[in-house]
Amino acid sequence: MQTGEGSNQGSRLDQWLGSYAARTRGMTASEIRALFAVASRPEVVSLAGGMPNLTALPMDVVGRAVSSLVAENGPVALQYGSGQGDPELRLRILDVMVPNRVTAHPDDIVVTTGSQQALDLVTRIFVDPGDVVLAEAPSYVGALGVFRSYQADVVHVPMDGEGLIPSALSDTLVSLKRAGKRVKLLYTVPNHHNPGGVTLSPERRPQIVEIARRFGVLVLEDDPYGLLGFDGDPVPALHSLDPDGVIYLGSFSKTFAPGFRVGWAVAPHAVREKLVLASESAILCPSSFSQMAVTSYLAEHDWKHQVGVFRELYRERRDAMLHALGDMMPTSSWTSPQGGFYVWVRVPDGLDTKAMLPRAVTARVAYVPGTAFYADAQGHDHMRLSYCYPSPERIREGVRRLAGVIDQELDVQATFGAAPRRPRPGSVVDSPGPDLT
Amino acid sequence: MQTGEGSNQGSRLDQWLGSYAARTRGMTASEIRALFAVASRPEVVSLAGGMPNLTALPMDVVGRAVSSLVAENGPVALQYGSGQGDPELRLRILDVMVPNRVTAHPDDIVVTTGSQQALDLVTRIFVDPGDVVLAEAPSYVGALGVFRSYQADVVHVPMDGEGLIPSALSDTLVSLKRAGKRVKLLYTVPNHHNPGGVTLSPERRPQIVEIARRFGVLVLEDDPYGLLGFDGDPVPALHSLDPDGVIYLGSFSKTFAPGFRVGWAVAPHAVREKLVLASESAILCPSSFSQMAVTSYLAEHDWKHQVGVFRELYRERRDAMLHALGDMMPTSSWTSPQGGFYVWVRVPDGLDTKAMLPRAVTARVAYVPGTAFYADAQGHDHMRLSYCYPSPERIREGVRRLAGVIDQELDVQATFGAAPRRPRPGSVVDSPGPDLT
Repeated sequence: MQTGEGSNQGSRLDQWLGSYAARTRGMTASEIRALFAVASRPEVVSLAGGMPNLTALPMDVVGRAVSSLVAENGPVALQYGSGQGDPELRLRILDVMVPNRVTAHPDDIVVTTGSQQALDLVTRIFVDPGDVVLAEAPSYVGALGVFRSYQADVVHVPMDGEGLIPSALSDTLVSLKRAGKRVKLLYTVPNHHNPGGVTLSPERRPQIVEIARRFGVLVLEDDPYGLLGFDGDPVPALHSLDPDGVIYLGSFSKTFAPGFRVGWAVAPHAVREKLVLASESAILCPSSFSQMAVTSYLAEHDWKHQVGVFRELYRERRDAMLHALGDMMPTSSWTSPQGGFYVWVRVPDGLDTKAMLPRAVTARVAYVPGTAFYADAQGHDHMRLSYCYPSPERIREGVRRLAGVIDQELDVQATFGAAPRRPRPGSVVDSPGPDLT
Repeated sequence: MQTGEGSNQGSRLDQWLGSYAARTRGMTASEIRALFAVASRPEVVSLAGGMPNLTALPMDVVGRAVSSLVAENGPVALQYGSGQGDPELRLRILDVMVPNRVTAHPDDIVVTTGSQQALDLVTRIFVDPGDVVLAEAPSYVGALGVFRSYQADVVHVPMDGEGLIPSALSDTLVSLKRAGKRVKLLYTVPNHHNPGGVTLSPERRPQIVEIARRFGVLVLEDDPYGLLGFDGDPVPALHSLDPDGVIYLGSFSKTFAPGFRVGWAVAPHAVREKLVLASESAILCPSSFSQMAVTSYLAEHDWKHQVGVFRELYRERRDAMLHALGDMMPTSSWTSPQGGFYVWVRVPDGLDTKAMLPRAVTARVAYVPGTAFYADAQGHDHMRLSYCYPSPERIREGVRRLAGVIDQELDVQATFGAAPRRPRPGSVVDSPGPDLT
């Protein structure tokens, strides 16, 4: 018997093994975690992480913001706050959503501990074990982990270069309905998809919203990268097309700083009430200090200009990666992201990105295998490359090393034939750790 | 038909009403919430809140800590961190637990978004719907909310002046075992109980731990007030008696500042691994900034002295409240807390603290009715009074107003007879909001 991710390592030592809840059985550390501990060494070029590049952030501005916050507002910033979040921050969030055409009342906003907590809360209030959550194929690993922890049945819907495919969504919903399944949510990252690197086209947006409405499925629109498009204006959010049918999630982690853990959800009124109650149960209230630090950064700094600076920084790195891939990986194919952090790469037939990862780390380059982004057995032929964090030179060097590993794999394959791909047991979701999501 | 807390107000407006998960049905806003919005007006003396008194906190020290944090460590403080929490903070937490005799390896500690999140995560990994969680009668309202949200069956175990009663615990476990119930956790606040105001005696601690071990029940020891005892040394934590059978929860919210939302759990090794995975699913990672702010406060300030300052501040307020009660509320009885924030008051027979609250708020004083602290129909004859936040003069004035309200109620009762007490439907838990827990 082979040991898959579903096994309980060290189970003989755990006297509480018989006490865990059913949902906990799905919570397993990824076997790639140990590899990434190695991959964090400085000699390894990590194209794996999703950490934003903070080199461009004006630390003097942030420093002044937090120290004047304590001086002028200490007793409030250090105290408990409201479960729904600071009213002044909620007002400012309205401004931040203008480019994506999300309009709301401040009362419709719930501030969360990063948008990850919003994912958790939405799933908590809607999903019973066995309920279906639809997600793009591939999908954000952190969301898959949440759905899994609430024992949802994740069903993937295909994407292409224009994002989620409306006819595929509709077909999937028809067959799920026939099978008597209860579909609760359509989870989607329409802008600069993680890991897909594609954006849902403006033409498809009304179609997706209409299909979801027709089938009574709530749309969960996750938009951390909406302001990080390299060309043209942002496409209006799905939320702008049907505010009563879409929960919109935003985040300051990619446009300001993840260290404060401030995200938010915009939800229909009744849903928002449930989200606040669920959040109070989960954490009482989000950090007053973090919220007020973000508020004062937004108030005192030209944050729009700063987002523009980030955009240019990421565009330069995107260009470096696409050029390097074009120069050095002729046997692979990939998406060409117009924003965000990620390129989704398809490796030559017969290669297995998960099996190849240890060899890549030995060759001092890291990526996330495609399998992490599916709730089922897909993804062995893909990998996610991030260009957000390393310098353009390091990106080029990383792709050079990766190309070498792929060439070696192809040599081995030519000599010995392709290794049979081993499907993964069940629908266990890898949890590769916070810095890789 | 009367409208209880379990009703779905505004349900006709919620198009997603049919989509909520089963667990969400238990999430209802307390009907006392609206009252507390009124109670937050300055003319009302609130003896309801559990907010720590931050007047004694050296804001200059905190201001310097956060600004030098950005200057010296900005790119780390503003970035994602580890799911388990900052290693340096985990080391410092070991020091903080020394007075309570909790010994651990830094690897055994999981940093959480306030200890509320630790409550949520522990419940998440252990409790299936219908599992029993034992809790003191009364018990912390925020914990009851968590247990309810995971559809636990909360069974209360009586306390007396020495805390949880071992024979009652053992009897309860025997009868639950006979009934075929699956008991997962014993939730207890052994030090300066919220809302009970009592401390589990040193003699009873080994008995409680031994009973839990015998029945295979994991102890969840919640200790936010362990350092806030007014007399003598802290009693060793339950954790010190059986580290493999106890999860210990600590918090900086009462000894430093709640606005950073930093708490922690100390758990047996295998359980700790599950907690980290659950936390990554819930929030990816706790705030790096918050953690490093607490770390630098602990490193650069004489935090033990500061805790001593808080202790004296709360002792003075406890004294003010006990004197005022003794002088002005001869028909009630109450506990005499040796630390912490709360006095638990029993009102004269026939009075109903929940029904009385609107009259109290009209008389410009607020408290939390006893019903908030039970998962069942108990508590109408009790109220929780907090002395942590108001000045001694305001405490005295608040008790004076409250005594007037009680006297009026007794007059009404003498004239018209006691109102029949209406048991609450089901086991719906009030969620009065974060500043009242």
